[in-house]
Amino acid sequence: MDIEILAVGGYNEFGRNMTAVRCGKEIIIFDMGIRLDSLMMYPEIEMENSHSLDLIQMGVIPDDTVMNQLEGTVKAVILSHGHLDHIGAVPKLVHRYNAPIIGTPYTIELVKQQIEGEKKFGVSNKLISIKYGQRYNISNTLSMEFIRTQHSIIDTATVALYTPKGAIIYALDFKLDRNPVLGEPPDFAKFKKIGKEGVLCLITESTNVNRKGRCPSEQIAKNMVRDVMTSYEDDKNAIIVSTFASHIARVKTIAECAHEIGRKPLLLGRSMERFCVTAEQMKMVRFPDTTSVFGNRRVVERTLRRLIKSGKEQYVPIVTGHQGEPGSILTRIAQNDTPYKIERGDKVMISAQLIPNDMNRAQRYRMFTMLKSQGARLFDELHVSGHAYCEDHYEFVHMLNPQYIVSAHGGIDLTSEYLGLATELGYTLNKDFFLMANGQRQKLA
Amino acid sequence: MDIEILAVGGYNEFGRNMTAVRCGKEIIIFDMGIRLDSLMMYPEIEMENSHSLDLIQMGVIPDDTVMNQLEGTVKAVILSHGHLDHIGAVPKLVHRYNAPIIGTPYTIELVKQQIEGEKKFGVSNKLISIKYGQRYNISNTLSMEFIRTQHSIIDTATVALYTPKGAIIYALDFKLDRNPVLGEPPDFAKFKKIGKEGVLCLITESTNVNRKGRCPSEQIAKNMVRDVMTSYEDDKNAIIVSTFASHIARVKTIAECAHEIGRKPLLLGRSMERFCVTAEQMKMVRFPDTTSVFGNRRVVERTLRRLIKSGKEQYVPIVTGHQGEPGSILTRIAQNDTPYKIERGDKVMISAQLIPNDMNRAQRYRMFTMLKSQGARLFDELHVSGHAYCEDHYEFVHMLNPQYIVSAHGGIDLTSEYLGLATELGYTLNKDFFLMANGQRQKLA
Amino acid sequence: MDIEILAVGGYNEFGRNMTAVRCGKEIIIFDMGIRLDSLMMYPEIEMENSHSLDLIQMGVIPDDTVMNQLEGTVKAVILSHGHLDHIGAVPKLVHRYNAPIIGTPYTIELVKQQIEGEKKFGVSNKLISIKYGQRYNISNTLSMEFIRTQHSIIDTATVALYTPKGAIIYALDFKLDRNPVLGEPPDFAKFKKIGKEGVLCLITESTNVNRKGRCPSEQIAKNMVRDVMTSYEDDKNAIIVSTFASHIARVKTIAECAHEIGRKPLLLGRSMERFCVTAEQMKMVRFPDTTSVFGNRRVVERTLRRLIKSGKEQYVPIVTGHQGEPGSILTRIAQNDTPYKIERGDKVMISAQLIPNDMNRAQRYRMFTMLKSQGARLFDELHVSGHAYCEDHYEFVHMLNPQYIVSAHGGIDLTSEYLGLATELGYTLNKDFFLMANGQRQKLA
Amino acid sequence: MDIEILAVGGYNEFGRNMTAVRCGKEIIIFDMGIRLDSLMMYPEIEMENSHSLDLIQMGVIPDDTVMNQLEGTVKAVILSHGHLDHIGAVPKLVHRYNAPIIGTPYTIELVKQQIEGEKKFGVSNKLISIKYGQRYNISNTLSMEFIRTQHSIIDTATVALYTPKGAIIYALDFKLDRNPVLGEPPDFAKFKKIGKEGVLCLITESTNVNRKGRCPSEQIAKNMVRDVMTSYEDDKNAIIVSTFASHIARVKTIAECAHEIGRKPLLLGRSMERFCVTAEQMKMVRFPDTTSVFGNRRVVERTLRRLIKSGKEQYVPIVTGHQGEPGSILTRIAQNDTPYKIERGDKVMISAQLIPNDMNRAQRYRMFTMLKSQGARLFDELHVSGHAYCEDHYEFVHMLNPQYIVSAHGGIDLTSEYLGLATELGYTLNKDFFLMANGQRQKLA
Repeated sequence: MDIEILAVGGYNEFGRNMTAVRCGKEIIIFDMGIRLDSLMMYPEIEMENSHSLDLIQMGVIPDDTVMNQLEGTVKAVILSHGHLDHIGAVPKLVHRYNAPIIGTPYTIELVKQQIEGEKKFGVSNKLISIKYGQRYNISNTLSMEFIRTQHSIIDTATVALYTPKGAIIYALDFKLDRNPVLGEPPDFAKFKKIGKEGVLCLITESTNVNRKGRCPSEQIAKNMVRDVMTSYEDDKNAIIVSTFASHIARVKTIAECAHEIGRKPLLLGRSMERFCVTAEQMKMVRFPDTTSVFGNRRVVERTLRRLIKSGKEQYVPIVTGHQGEPGSILTRIAQNDTPYKIERGDKVMISAQLIPNDMNRAQRYRMFTMLKSQGARLFDELHVSGHAYCEDHYEFVHMLNPQYIVSAHGGIDLTSEYLGLATELGYTLNKDFFLMANGQRQKLA
Repeated sequence: MDIEILAVGGYNEFGRNMTAVRCGKEIIIFDMGIRLDSLMMYPEIEMENSHSLDLIQMGVIPDDTVMNQLEGTVKAVILSHGHLDHIGAVPKLVHRYNAPIIGTPYTIELVKQQIEGEKKFGVSNKLISIKYGQRYNISNTLSMEFIRTQHSIIDTATVALYTPKGAIIYALDFKLDRNPVLGEPPDFAKFKKIGKEGVLCLITESTNVNRKGRCPSEQIAKNMVRDVMTSYEDDKNAIIVSTFASHIARVKTIAECAHEIGRKPLLLGRSMERFCVTAEQMKMVRFPDTTSVFGNRRVVERTLRRLIKSGKEQYVPIVTGHQGEPGSILTRIAQNDTPYKIERGDKVMISAQLIPNDMNRAQRYRMFTMLKSQGARLFDELHVSGHAYCEDHYEFVHMLNPQYIVSAHGGIDLTSEYLGLATELGYTLNKDFFLMANGQRQKLA
Repeated sequence: MDIEILAVGGYNEFGRNMTAVRCGKEIIIFDMGIRLDSLMMYPEIEMENSHSLDLIQMGVIPDDTVMNQLEGTVKAVILSHGHLDHIGAVPKLVHRYNAPIIGTPYTIELVKQQIEGEKKFGVSNKLISIKYGQRYNISNTLSMEFIRTQHSIIDTATVALYTPKGAIIYALDFKLDRNPVLGEPPDFAKFKKIGKEGVLCLITESTNVNRKGRCPSEQIAKNMVRDVMTSYEDDKNAIIVSTFASHIARVKTIAECAHEIGRKPLLLGRSMERFCVTAEQMKMVRFPDTTSVFGNRRVVERTLRRLIKSGKEQYVPIVTGHQGEPGSILTRIAQNDTPYKIERGDKVMISAQLIPNDMNRAQRYRMFTMLKSQGARLFDELHVSGHAYCEDHYEFVHMLNPQYIVSAHGGIDLTSEYLGLATELGYTLNKDFFLMANGQRQKLA
Repeated sequence: MDIEILAVGGYNEFGRNMTAVRCGKEIIIFDMGIRLDSLMMYPEIEMENSHSLDLIQMGVIPDDTVMNQLEGTVKAVILSHGHLDHIGAVPKLVHRYNAPIIGTPYTIELVKQQIEGEKKFGVSNKLISIKYGQRYNISNTLSMEFIRTQHSIIDTATVALYTPKGAIIYALDFKLDRNPVLGEPPDFAKFKKIGKEGVLCLITESTNVNRKGRCPSEQIAKNMVRDVMTSYEDDKNAIIVSTFASHIARVKTIAECAHEIGRKPLLLGRSMERFCVTAEQMKMVRFPDTTSVFGNRRVVERTLRRLIKSGKEQYVPIVTGHQGEPGSILTRIAQNDTPYKIERGDKVMISAQLIPNDMNRAQRYRMFTMLKSQGARLFDELHVSGHAYCEDHYEFVHMLNPQYIVSAHGGIDLTSEYLGLATELGYTLNKDFFLMANGQRQKLA
């Protein structure tokens, strides 16, 4: 059986991840994501009403027309985790493939909601929810398994695709957090076992491979958030926190700190509602009993009005808008577009890093300037990354001992940074270590 | 006679320059500018319809309410040059002062147009146009003179205010270009003469004081533009150039290079029309005979349509939009909002530097990305600065030998960079070298 | 009584801190430090044999010849903490003043050792050791007190000098760590009390005032170090850690983590011995019982040889050299100049940040390159700062409510960054907020 | 005939360039350079006495042991130009190959001097000097030609190797300067002709491919130097200029400017003597008649002493040391180690850019700090690059129209930057565009 990899999306840019693997006549697709910063350049575009070909041309979703290079039948679309750069293009592309969508329970639930929101295309692919550690037979020759790992969203999996030539490991995205805040540490035993049985190829993210050492545990972020939030006990000013709505562990930390200082956590914003309520309903997280969640814009307005009346010091609004996104709650508060008025000494805490592109930089700068002009005190970068650093990758490769490595998750400026490590580990460029470009194929066996 | 300086605007930020000097009971104001990047944060604001108090609160124009600290009568508003950060607030603020506006001929002409465009306030102050080297008596005790210098707009002056205690030199903005493209070099003889007669205080810009050496001559920019533009003789692709509309010398260079390669220069855009036609009518510049100018948006559209028909290779559009400003011609071309379609191999040249703030960075990034996706070839930074470097300042102070120096033109992050040079020149912080903040006064004598 | 401040050193540069305060005829000196990066430019200089005038000319120690501007008698030299940029010039300068040296117990012990090592000058000033919270009468009119705070060395104090016109608070250097690893949190109650009684002037460090939010607690550094060190249990490779020898809390953390993973901590290097043994003898810290300390170079060599024999996996050497300093242990290991050979997979952890100057950058780069070429795995920045961030300063000023603020601890590029915060807090440049230069005086009352 | 490329050196790092091409059984080597910054890390190494295997291990010269992968006989070692990163390893490696060394006349002359200085190995390979445009037959099947181009050293060639499968173009390093100061512009006609006849592969440098637009002409550097040097006519202070000794065109510019302002040019330093005297003797340059050259250290000292006596204002020393190299003349002047004393107001001009690595940064910082402390005025970056920018590469590929492109001259962080342009030009990664690593082979035909 010959095996080849097709880089569909996310190899020329950061975002819109999609990779296909052909094993003989059978094809497996990993992820179908979108590229958010391309979308940001066209503020007038409504995603749910757009056609896939237009979105392809704008670079927002993967150009899957290259799939016709591969001879074979798509047997499964496997999703690694629920971030939009990995699942956001499912409603636009998946209907072209007569194959089931496979994901961990939380990821599948998010995809289901995405598909329901889609207005242009009808999607009728079967949705299959598989837990960590369960083996699933895709066909007579291929099976797969989700291996437990950690990332900045719950239920993230490293995917093992078992082929007659050995396992193919798809590891976008992950961190080797030994001390996580939510869920269990990565399944090191399983990685080692698979490594012993034989790994044909590791397809790995490379985001932070140029950062020395190990990615700090989410526990560090928890301590940073807690240290700051608990240092204002007798302060009557507001404390507002913004973080990634999908980062359930972080939202939990913030809500618990709010509770600890005697303030009620208020989760505000549509995406905050979607990610957190879904997680809670699936019993994957428990927030303090005093927590409320409001997503609808009018209800949010009403809640903010009530909050102002009863006293800012009784609540901690946990809101969207950490990147200064237009229309997000924090941006609207900064613009004085909500009933919530910022006063001198109010604390605004950002438990996120700047996602480094010029569009975000401008939006954040504008939001921060407006918040400061109203007297807000700003706290930034109460955050740790969700992506493995160099020494995590070093450990990961040592456990898996793959025959080939493909560096993915970004343009060549990012993926090529893996080469240094690969060389130290004994791999050679273009021989058993590959850098790829969108639309390009690489034979393995 | 006691003399003091009041920092009104431009000492906490880059832009909205305004400084007042009180000599006994008489007050002189230097410049009344706006801050463009504050304006950019409020895209919905229409400058010409806004009230000054709102603009002050947004930080767009100087907060001249601090003027009531000074006891005395404003005798003159002296403008150094025609850039908006030096004259843009005149229509909003000048009517409060019963005093004439004094400037060089080109500056006065631009102010006149500004005042005509103002819709909120009526301005009836007398406009006085004075040429370089003419002495003008402001009162029995005070007189002034514009000293010829160079900058990125024509007719820029260093102002000498003659008081009984010595001259006060207001040098915002300047470069000591010995080899300019338009106009004469700075009047070194006059600077030395004044230096010998006695300078009480030098109020100086500090923009590039941290850059080693001398600011390159505009001749260097001319050569850079020419080198690139003349390297595509048998190319049938478009050549589009964008530069500062107010940088008449540069526009002239570009138009001449277009002429040299057998293409007709087309000056397009409202501000391009305003600055260039005014300069030409005043006989301060001559463009090649083949040059046309169109400002009105509909006429620009029509011109672009005609241009496409007759062949891109016959013209060089010289357009606004080098910073990616929304609504500018180059941005609209990038967005495919004009009849002018970018094709593979078309050259887009930016004869300007990025004005470094996050808003511009985002807008330029967006424009460049769109141009590139259509196949344009990009040329950037065909430019030299219009602001003196460290060794120019060194020479300047040596010629003037002032008793006191005030570092102006920016927040303390910029103005404080002058301290190193001042110390090397024998000045001492807070003794004869001053850093100021908006609203603050400094006694001199 | 008139009071004025004289900036002696550390106002034009980072390092060589020294400030004098004259109250009537009595003068108090705060700190006498050295500038390490100036020293680095003259590798041939032997500090202990150099004359003060030479060191002044090289910019290594403060130019205290400016002290003759002040009319009065020096009554005390008060030292805030034991870092070299605060006490390193004591042996070179203090003998000129007929006054006692006052410090907290640990600081005084370090100064004593410094004076013993001095070969050029004889120092006979009285050494007075004062604990946190004790009031000490300097004269009939002046008294002082060390207030407990936190920093990256133990026994750091914020100094309160009580004058008839109110307290003068000297706060170089500090962080408001509510959750320290060693010692107690800062004495917030005392700061608030003094704030109520009246503070004439706050002389404050400004190092991190441009960093948003609060400085992370030392607890965060502890967690980061622990996370990484405990992730290699069944690894037989070396683990070497380098940190600031004077950062006793950090050394303790590292030693405890070594103990936790079953390895013996080995503190190696002359300065490691000096700072840590002194602290342990004074019962200010307790290291695990398995800890050994060796300072003498030949003993260190012998220890490393023994270590290699018995097995790297039994020890964690905690060594000097985090900046790549020539002659330090880690640098010599990197250069293969010791019996300790780096092998593939050995871990080298730096629990420190790069001190940002070009000399350090080059030395670190060289050391890292050599370590990597031998197969070492590098971990960097397992560290948090010891200097207050913007919101710590905000809280500090709110507690103290000083009439005047002087921003210190660096050139104007650093000290001027405090101006933004000062303005937000209602202070005005040159009125009640001052930026100073070496040799300059500022009257307060 | 099958053809393959072997990346020997300069593909994992910047420097030590060496590439081999096998055509059937015949092998051609391009360049044998050294890596200067590796050498800088071992200040005790004496290059001329070192063994090649030691130098390979330190990463200073290419690891040509990988050559044994290739089956065939080396027929020629072709050198593109005389910079050390292209010819510096010849004395260490070339004796292993029984083949002639081929270069342009100036390059061959420099190699001859290198070989004479070598103390470890005897080199007896034949040296063949070929002018631009001459065809030279290497064997029955292979011939070659040097094509005229421009770079920062005279007599630089782009090499065309003619094979039965088409030409292989080796273009390290070049710029497409249409208006050079010395020599003729690149031979565009020849490039176009070869492009039409068929180019199998372009091996190209990628240094500045990420810089937009075109590389500025050397004429720009000439104007920048002239502008500054001629702005101090009635100044009695020293003017010292440092530039690359091998940059003959630049040295000529500086010498001519010195002459123009009535000062005698003094070329000082061993490498200054080697490069400039060689060029003059070969009649490739003419300096002003008032020019003197001194290389020997003792003669330089004597000259400086004489110069001080007769008056600094009569000379312009043109010296080595622009990177702050230890032992260079400018560094020794800065350290006050020569008879030449810097005085307040003396001008030190650097007509070079910083070669960006941490070692240089530190050395330059140290030198500049010392010069400033003695009162020197500093001028930096009076320079333009010698490497093609993005649009030069775009034009170059259009002229040559190669079947394959290999991006060379640096680690993958640099070479991968060519991918963006290659993609725009229609090339595909791993199909007809290749990124390589040291020791790796790539089949072409």
